[in-house]
Amino acid sequence: MAQLRRDPIVGRWVIVDTDDPKKPQDFQYEQYIPKGTELCPFCYGNEFMTPPEINCIREQGTGINTPGWQVRVVANKFPALQIEGELDRRGIGIYDMSNGIGAHEIVIESPYHTKDLPDLLQEEVENYLKICCSRCADLAKDSRFKYLMLFRNYGSAAGASLEHPHTQIVALPMVPKNALEELHGAKEYFNYRERCIFCDIIRQEIQDQERIVLENKYFLSFCPFVSRFPFEIMVIPKKHAGSFTFLSFEEIKALAEIMQGTIRKLKKVFENLSYNYIIHSSPINGDAEEEYYHWHIELMPKLTQVAGFEWGTGFYLDSTSPELATQYLKAV
Amino acid sequence: MAQLRRDPIVGRWVIVDTDDPKKPQDFQYEQYIPKGTELCPFCYGNEFMTPPEINCIREQGTGINTPGWQVRVVANKFPALQIEGELDRRGIGIYDMSNGIGAHEIVIESPYHTKDLPDLLQEEVENYLKICCSRCADLAKDSRFKYLMLFRNYGSAAGASLEHPHTQIVALPMVPKNALEELHGAKEYFNYRERCIFCDIIRQEIQDQERIVLENKYFLSFCPFVSRFPFEIMVIPKKHAGSFTFLSFEEIKALAEIMQGTIRKLKKVFENLSYNYIIHSSPINGDAEEEYYHWHIELMPKLTQVAGFEWGTGFYLDSTSPELATQYLKAV
Repeated sequence: MAQLRRDPIVGRWVIVDTDDPKKPQDFQYEQYIPKGTELCPFCYGNEFMTPPEINCIREQGTGINTPGWQVRVVANKFPALQIEGELDRRGIGIYDMSNGIGAHEIVIESPYHTKDLPDLLQEEVENYLKICCSRCADLAKDSRFKYLMLFRNYGSAAGASLEHPHTQIVALPMVPKNALEELHGAKEYFNYRERCIFCDIIRQEIQDQERIVLENKYFLSFCPFVSRFPFEIMVIPKKHAGSFTFLSFEEIKALAEIMQGTIRKLKKVFENLSYNYIIHSSPINGDAEEEYYHWHIELMPKLTQVAGFEWGTGFYLDSTSPELATQYLKAV
Repeated sequence: MAQLRRDPIVGRWVIVDTDDPKKPQDFQYEQYIPKGTELCPFCYGNEFMTPPEINCIREQGTGINTPGWQVRVVANKFPALQIEGELDRRGIGIYDMSNGIGAHEIVIESPYHTKDLPDLLQEEVENYLKICCSRCADLAKDSRFKYLMLFRNYGSAAGASLEHPHTQIVALPMVPKNALEELHGAKEYFNYRERCIFCDIIRQEIQDQERIVLENKYFLSFCPFVSRFPFEIMVIPKKHAGSFTFLSFEEIKALAEIMQGTIRKLKKVFENLSYNYIIHSSPINGDAEEEYYHWHIELMPKLTQVAGFEWGTGFYLDSTSPELATQYLKAV
């Protein structure tokens, strides 16, 4: 019989198929092999095709907006939100609206058109993470912004519209719904137990050892007990920290290592996989959410399609239990 | 500049692109043309391939589980949840779980393998809706069930695994998260104003006339002010009613008419479109949610892909404003 599992943070129920679980070979997913033939605005020599660089790490002696960079941050040419103007919230009858103030930046992770994170040198990934932290610290200075969303769509099935690997940072003038739900759940738990729920989950996962994929001095990667998708993975700092922005040099090294290792394993089980990851961090310019909230990364492989059932209910069907997924990930 | 709009029921913010909106011809979606060649368990003569029928409307003189039916309900051969057993909720450390008690039924809408709802006679659609109501009334008698989810995945991009059009009914032992959110939002509004929020939305939409696609004596179909997806549509009874289950004969006729008309329009704008719809109705065997909740249907065309941004935030990007979508739908 299937199991119903309830997420302790947001209260979501998930059906986990423990009876007749899907094995890796049972998934029919869209494989992603970058063609690399298009004229790419993120490749060396095409810097003129993007808006001017906001930040970058580049070889000494090379000029801005020319080749020689290793990580490069530019504004999104087609931003979802615009940086200029004052926030103007108002009602229209029963409805509420606001003008679209915000920022939308692109982090071009490396000059290599076809290299995914695990294909880079660890040092290159460290530089990418460093620049992500530094952009977050800078954007947080703008008091109009309440939340920073950092996410990466890798591969066509994950919604990437350009092949060249890149990460997006969106600064929002309000805290989005899903983040509010996590914050609310974490706060309720904290009020009741005076402990961080994520710290308690980490303790239980380390004790159970059933769902841990990788662990190093500072980070843990594991398949959550209540996974919405098969082979979903959470990467989380072992020490309590509310925000992704302020990582030490040692922590950046450890995060680069565990992210590379985790994605490498995932792509060994599923060749040419598309996936998304999203950094969940505390709101900015708000109250002291950092006491009870614990930043983390949610990594979602694109193995299945989300249909009416999931949309309608927020009730997910996980065809491979996280315990079984962990076994496959550990074996490679 | 884009607009940010806030859903008055669940508090979700959506970015609506009012600057450079997408027109119907700008969408690259997966067209769905049923092949009709497979051996289909839902076609006449193959009744033996499904579990035995639970309910059906059939010609007089034809035997059960043989041809001659017009709508047929069977148990799902691969149910997500099982009907036998007692509910057993328990904790495992910090986590909660339950055994997978529930029901999972399939409504085969007509004997025609390649006919979508608008291709049927209105009378055939009325029979399909009648049997859906009657299955809901019957499942609600089981006190273990707290929520009935009725949804339809049409076309491969919408997650339909079998071509022959069918609707699924899932009876759940708990109220799922998304339904709880809507109930909570509607209750807060009701407590504050002593009015149903959906009734107020209907009043405003009829007054504005900007987003109404179709209207008849009993129902309204309109593009919601806060659409998550381009060309999303809500179909709702104009008179307050908490539950889908108890429709009068006149109401069933009106619902069949507006559903056929609305989907026909959508498929005139987007040929061979895949789509989902989901019936949102009050929980069963619970408190009196029917006072403040108003049942409705959410219809979601599969024109876009949901990527990391949407998953991470519950923050959607709508590339065609509902006002513009309504204009296109009215013009066909």
